[in-house]
Amino acid sequence: MQNLREKSLEFHKQAKGKLSVNVKVPLENASDLSLAYSPGVAEPCKDIYENPEKIYSYTMKGNFVAVVSDGSAVLGLGNIGAEASLPVMEGKAALFKAFADIDAVPLCMNTSDPEQIIQIVKSLEPTFGGINLEDIAAPNCFIIEERLKKEMNIPVFHDDQHGTAIVTAAGLLNALKIVNKRLEDCKIVVNGAGAAGIAVTKLLLYMGAGDIILCDSKGTIFKGRPYGMNPMKEALAEMTNKRGVQGSLHDAMKGADVFIGVSVAGAVTPEMVQSMNEGAIVFAMANPTPEIMPEAAKAAGAAVVGTGRSDLPNQVNNVLAFPGIFKGALRVRATEINEEMKLAAVYAIANLVSPNELTNDYVIPHPLDRRVVEAVANAVARTAVRTGVARIAELDIEQ
Amino acid sequence: MQNLREKSLEFHKQAKGKLSVNVKVPLENASDLSLAYSPGVAEPCKDIYENPEKIYSYTMKGNFVAVVSDGSAVLGLGNIGAEASLPVMEGKAALFKAFADIDAVPLCMNTSDPEQIIQIVKSLEPTFGGINLEDIAAPNCFIIEERLKKEMNIPVFHDDQHGTAIVTAAGLLNALKIVNKRLEDCKIVVNGAGAAGIAVTKLLLYMGAGDIILCDSKGTIFKGRPYGMNPMKEALAEMTNKRGVQGSLHDAMKGADVFIGVSVAGAVTPEMVQSMNEGAIVFAMANPTPEIMPEAAKAAGAAVVGTGRSDLPNQVNNVLAFPGIFKGALRVRATEINEEMKLAAVYAIANLVSPNELTNDYVIPHPLDRRVVEAVANAVARTAVRTGVARIAELDIEQ
Repeated sequence: MQNLREKSLEFHKQAKGKLSVNVKVPLENASDLSLAYSPGVAEPCKDIYENPEKIYSYTMKGNFVAVVSDGSAVLGLGNIGAEASLPVMEGKAALFKAFADIDAVPLCMNTSDPEQIIQIVKSLEPTFGGINLEDIAAPNCFIIEERLKKEMNIPVFHDDQHGTAIVTAAGLLNALKIVNKRLEDCKIVVNGAGAAGIAVTKLLLYMGAGDIILCDSKGTIFKGRPYGMNPMKEALAEMTNKRGVQGSLHDAMKGADVFIGVSVAGAVTPEMVQSMNEGAIVFAMANPTPEIMPEAAKAAGAAVVGTGRSDLPNQVNNVLAFPGIFKGALRVRATEINEEMKLAAVYAIANLVSPNELTNDYVIPHPLDRRVVEAVANAVARTAVRTGVARIAELDIEQ
Repeated sequence: MQNLREKSLEFHKQAKGKLSVNVKVPLENASDLSLAYSPGVAEPCKDIYENPEKIYSYTMKGNFVAVVSDGSAVLGLGNIGAEASLPVMEGKAALFKAFADIDAVPLCMNTSDPEQIIQIVKSLEPTFGGINLEDIAAPNCFIIEERLKKEMNIPVFHDDQHGTAIVTAAGLLNALKIVNKRLEDCKIVVNGAGAAGIAVTKLLLYMGAGDIILCDSKGTIFKGRPYGMNPMKEALAEMTNKRGVQGSLHDAMKGADVFIGVSVAGAVTPEMVQSMNEGAIVFAMANPTPEIMPEAAKAAGAAVVGTGRSDLPNQVNNVLAFPGIFKGALRVRATEINEEMKLAAVYAIANLVSPNELTNDYVIPHPLDRRVVEAVANAVARTAVRTGVARIAELDIEQ
């Protein structure tokens, strides 16, 4: 890891960060200046004042996304604060550009007060076409996202929740084809009840999963559990763990068909995998070290194993989802990213692995597979139009 | 103007705005991704967490400026709101890039509540190296700037005030050389008591001007004037109009040596210019149409005339100041832009017109003169170090 550390520091130091701003119009002479700035710039201003929708024709707004964070839950580093989170948010913005040609900038803010974050982000609605919330700790992330979705007319997306959920679900759909099981029939265990675990659970329920047990560091979450609860866990206890399993992760995993880990390194032992059902699916996505390494999981009987790591097969990586989701949503000026659009992204990702390519070690497209972003964008844009949250039909884009 | 209108709309429509975001590091393969994002990105995060100053080495912050506006006083258009102001703020950011290679983005916000704007901008201090306030109406602009300067540790600069003041002062210093007068001895009239007029007056006072009369639409501003006052005008009434002139702009201009207009088209008549002192200097900077056209002012006896227009000589254009000022301030990580730094910018701009080049029609460098930005940046950076507001000496920049 020393090598990675030195390489990364040098990588970041060389150019002082990862992003710059580029002027995409000519600005060579007085005539250019008179168009880009005073007096010519008054003309698009007047047009937008008369017809606010024109902002999408004359400005960068329609392709401009803010990557918003308070630095309270950064990667595996935890609450390192806004300043220290800036390299991550700049990196996220760079991924937006590299994968989807979306112009994104980091907005790291030195407040973790949900009400303040909500007010700040809302006030910037005139400038941005979309908001990507990133690395904000639970439960604030739930409060902030819910309020912003309700109170803003542009897409708001908390990637740690929904990006993870969408890619996980896509991989799971394909893994189920291999073991020939249906989502409705599976016993599923989700370990980790933070932003990602909650979102995975909710999306799988929405997709028809019948039996999910959500676990946190205190074990299975069940209705009326007298310790370590919060409003989000209470709500999920109502919808999950129908068999009322009380106990540890170990207990939950007995007879399970699917394990989804968004927790910590080493949380799963070979014995736990052995106790699972035939054709077990193990997505061990703790970063950088999985809950259990694929080799060990397979030796213990797992049929399909995925992780978050780029050096292992079946990498569950959010970059498969957020670039295309925003690209599709921005393309049709969607006012939100609704559940149907998320589901469309799940299927678009899953379907890129054709039946004849599908193997235990290839249930999800490679993060660098360039087909993904367009496939997801098209599916999301179409679904936005179909579900009535698009402000323009895709065909009307060029006004 | 119809032609300009069509050209400008087309100019803005072609690329959908004027800015894009650019990734300045390689992002081609899995190895690049592992440095720019997870897991490698954790390394600069950890370093910044240990030593916050490292944010300048590993991120874009040190060269990243927010162009902040509520759209309440945009060009000659007035309070058109945040959305309609976006083309202007994007244009301003484009000028930052084109003139000083500074990465700037617009942040147009849909609130004009000073306290809210202050909280929003303050909260974004982790992300930006500097804040350029733009087109915020008086008196809010004064309140916001003063508080932010006090409560933030990065440069905050309201360009409509200080940019205008600095460039005006530079032109005035050179114009005075032509008519062979000293600033201390001049009778000066400033017409317009908004952001620009107030700032021009304050800077000229700071530079030693002895006799300034500030006028607004109601005439001369004097101590105890019982109408149309506000706290800023009250404060300036204490420092200006020593002779206690009461009356109209017409009255103020009798016997004046210098007229500085930041007001409205046609505010000055040939008769008013005729009533001025020998060797009159007239800076008629109303946009797009000056208070009096240069031809008319010269016919009425003015020795030197400047305007805001690019198609006329002596263009007083803010682009001569703000790019170099921010470039100099950012270079040494100045915590603020103080009066001495502004003064250094004034002299740097003025001194680019050498004594043997100086004519009535060339008292100020051309806006596209590429020497300006470096001259201003160097002067501002040196002055920041000298006055103790630089966080690094210029020579220590490459750590």
